[in-house]
Amino acid sequence: MSPGSGLPRVVVVGAGFGGLAVARGLAKAPVDVLVLDRENYHAFLPLLYQVATSGLSAQDITYPVRSILSRIPNARFRMVEIAGGHLGERYVETKVGERIPYDVLVVAAGSTTEFFGNASVERYAFCMHHLQEALELRNHALAALERADASKGPERQALLGFVVVGGGPTGVELAGMLAEMRRHVVPRDFPDLADGMRVILLEGRDRLLAGLPPSLSQRALAQIRELGVEVRLNTFVDQVSPEGVQLQGAGWIQARTVVWATGVRGAPLGEELGLTTDRSGRIVVESTLEVERHPEVYVIGDLARVRGLEALPQVAPVAIQQGQRVAGNLERRIRGEPPLPFTYRDRGTMATIGRNRAVAHVFGREIAGRRAWWVWLLVHLIFLVGFRNRSVVFLNWTYHYLTYDLGLRAIVGPRRRQG
Amino acid sequence: MSPGSGLPRVVVVGAGFGGLAVARGLAKAPVDVLVLDRENYHAFLPLLYQVATSGLSAQDITYPVRSILSRIPNARFRMVEIAGGHLGERYVETKVGERIPYDVLVVAAGSTTEFFGNASVERYAFCMHHLQEALELRNHALAALERADASKGPERQALLGFVVVGGGPTGVELAGMLAEMRRHVVPRDFPDLADGMRVILLEGRDRLLAGLPPSLSQRALAQIRELGVEVRLNTFVDQVSPEGVQLQGAGWIQARTVVWATGVRGAPLGEELGLTTDRSGRIVVESTLEVERHPEVYVIGDLARVRGLEALPQVAPVAIQQGQRVAGNLERRIRGEPPLPFTYRDRGTMATIGRNRAVAHVFGREIAGRRAWWVWLLVHLIFLVGFRNRSVVFLNWTYHYLTYDLGLRAIVGPRRRQG
Repeated sequence: MSPGSGLPRVVVVGAGFGGLAVARGLAKAPVDVLVLDRENYHAFLPLLYQVATSGLSAQDITYPVRSILSRIPNARFRMVEIAGGHLGERYVETKVGERIPYDVLVVAAGSTTEFFGNASVERYAFCMHHLQEALELRNHALAALERADASKGPERQALLGFVVVGGGPTGVELAGMLAEMRRHVVPRDFPDLADGMRVILLEGRDRLLAGLPPSLSQRALAQIRELGVEVRLNTFVDQVSPEGVQLQGAGWIQARTVVWATGVRGAPLGEELGLTTDRSGRIVVESTLEVERHPEVYVIGDLARVRGLEALPQVAPVAIQQGQRVAGNLERRIRGEPPLPFTYRDRGTMATIGRNRAVAHVFGREIAGRRAWWVWLLVHLIFLVGFRNRSVVFLNWTYHYLTYDLGLRAIVGPRRRQG
Repeated sequence: MSPGSGLPRVVVVGAGFGGLAVARGLAKAPVDVLVLDRENYHAFLPLLYQVATSGLSAQDITYPVRSILSRIPNARFRMVEIAGGHLGERYVETKVGERIPYDVLVVAAGSTTEFFGNASVERYAFCMHHLQEALELRNHALAALERADASKGPERQALLGFVVVGGGPTGVELAGMLAEMRRHVVPRDFPDLADGMRVILLEGRDRLLAGLPPSLSQRALAQIRELGVEVRLNTFVDQVSPEGVQLQGAGWIQARTVVWATGVRGAPLGEELGLTTDRSGRIVVESTLEVERHPEVYVIGDLARVRGLEALPQVAPVAIQQGQRVAGNLERRIRGEPPLPFTYRDRGTMATIGRNRAVAHVFGREIAGRRAWWVWLLVHLIFLVGFRNRSVVFLNWTYHYLTYDLGLRAIVGPRRRQG
């Protein structure tokens, strides 16, 4: 019971797509919902790569959690970082030791970067999981161009090398944006550097975008090569250093900017709560999304591994549908009905590659090129939370489309080591 | 002579309003212009207080210097920090020891915060001179509200205290925005905190906005008090601590957020170049804006103190007009004509206080209230550099005006101590 209202208290850890879907789904249920997140904003992470390449600002893809929840009368928010808890005594614990009790717990803490134990990657590569990381990457890349403009010879060459590791959607989208920057922004802002910038995309498998049908992988490969990205398939990273990437087998690529856009690991909360996790840190749950022997604890989104299903993609639609399922099952429980198993309704997958270039697999149809790009644009605008963000993003994109410019190139905010 | 073209090389230190006015003014002159700045962007600092209060994002008030200069064929840019030089040998020196030679030097390095030797202010108060500082203040203020929501008693009271020191335009605008936040955002996002937040504005003189006629100071005082700001005139700060402000004489104000919006000091470059400065660090120049005995060195903007004139306000119009004067005098010199003295054409002063509240003194007329606010809005939109920024800012303001919301409340980027 929640102290204030006497209603059961549902604590949701994480204000991402999954956590917010739970809060929305429970808007009319006789429960109190408390959403916890270590940040005060919800981030639209599918567009993170645009922040990393100065197409959008951090504020364009974020929205205050409190503003979202203010429309849900039975939901409240607290900005705290959860670092453990006790399932038997039904509380979660913040990093500073405060205990927050629950009647029902929904763990929607998302994912983080998987380095596969490679310390050199963890130390020297840029990641693409959090907003802060995207800003670090953006500021680093812009500063590298500035320094390249004042350098010569091998120093300049190293500063102009940009390696993206991972040929999934994030890697492809990021490499595509860097290539657009190379074609349209660099010649204008840094005329001396026009020919020197290299964008290299490394993928371990034999094709890009392995989640899509092979024919679309082919189309994507052709489109991204047209943009001038050097794609290397069947290629694995051995070590990353401040100077570049050592490949497995042989091969060395000189580059001061290396982005690790591969490898997803469940947030550490699973282990901190003492729950059973798979080898990528995801918490194993029943088909109803409940934790075994703890039917009052649900796990959804990137952090959930549903027993008996193959591993689902760690994308927003899965998290949202799981959040809706949990809200539905909670309402069923209140009505005394048995829970329903989660089934994923895959509406499609898409990836943008650059201006007028994208691939999409939607409702069983494969489309590529300009048409796929417009579909991508529309879908992302529709799903972007909040009126203001939607119109600002639309304005930025219109501006970018008409002028070939990426306007947000001020080096503001987080900076990491000068590589 | 500049190595490449054989034309005289004009080095401009600082890409603020003054420095850019010089580059623009010399667009058709037979010279090479090299603009230097430690940041890669021009910041529209008159709107900095909006960034500090989540009305605008950092990117909304910045614009890449390279984009601005790309329209000026004889101007180039380098991102470097200048930390000295030698007037006799005609070079400036970067922080890392690189020497950049010039034929003509324009020092437009702006100003920084004057702490009047009070170490407690320097250590604990937030400043409003640089973009980074505005972001620190914003993130601190938003985090203070989050923490207040989870606190009780004196702890909550301290977190809800916001003190602004200085009743000039920056202090008034900042206090006004904080009061708007208290009225419109806090009740929605933090219903429990609705009555607790205090905004206190301290001013040492007997009126606000001393640069305006006394009748407008009265109007401003009435308007800002209507908004709920506690104004204390004839009040001086003795010490700032993490817990609040000790006033001179007597009095203590509990507040975890203290903003130092008073005191302007010339950037240290004047002293680093060994030039004569006044007691606020401004470089003393002749009426032609030349340095005595160094007619090839000009100083403009916040950093210039024109001999024989009373100290001019450190605002954008002065810097722009001085930049235009320097460009004109350089062209005159090339034509063999004597330089003209600088005269300031004061078109007016204004300050916004809040929604529909402002005061303006333009072309000798005094206006206040809604009309002054619209004038302020129009003037600032017109002068904001760049199409994208103008439309994004307009959109943000329209949204804010219609919804009473301040949309950019994601805590992203620079954070300082947890106060």
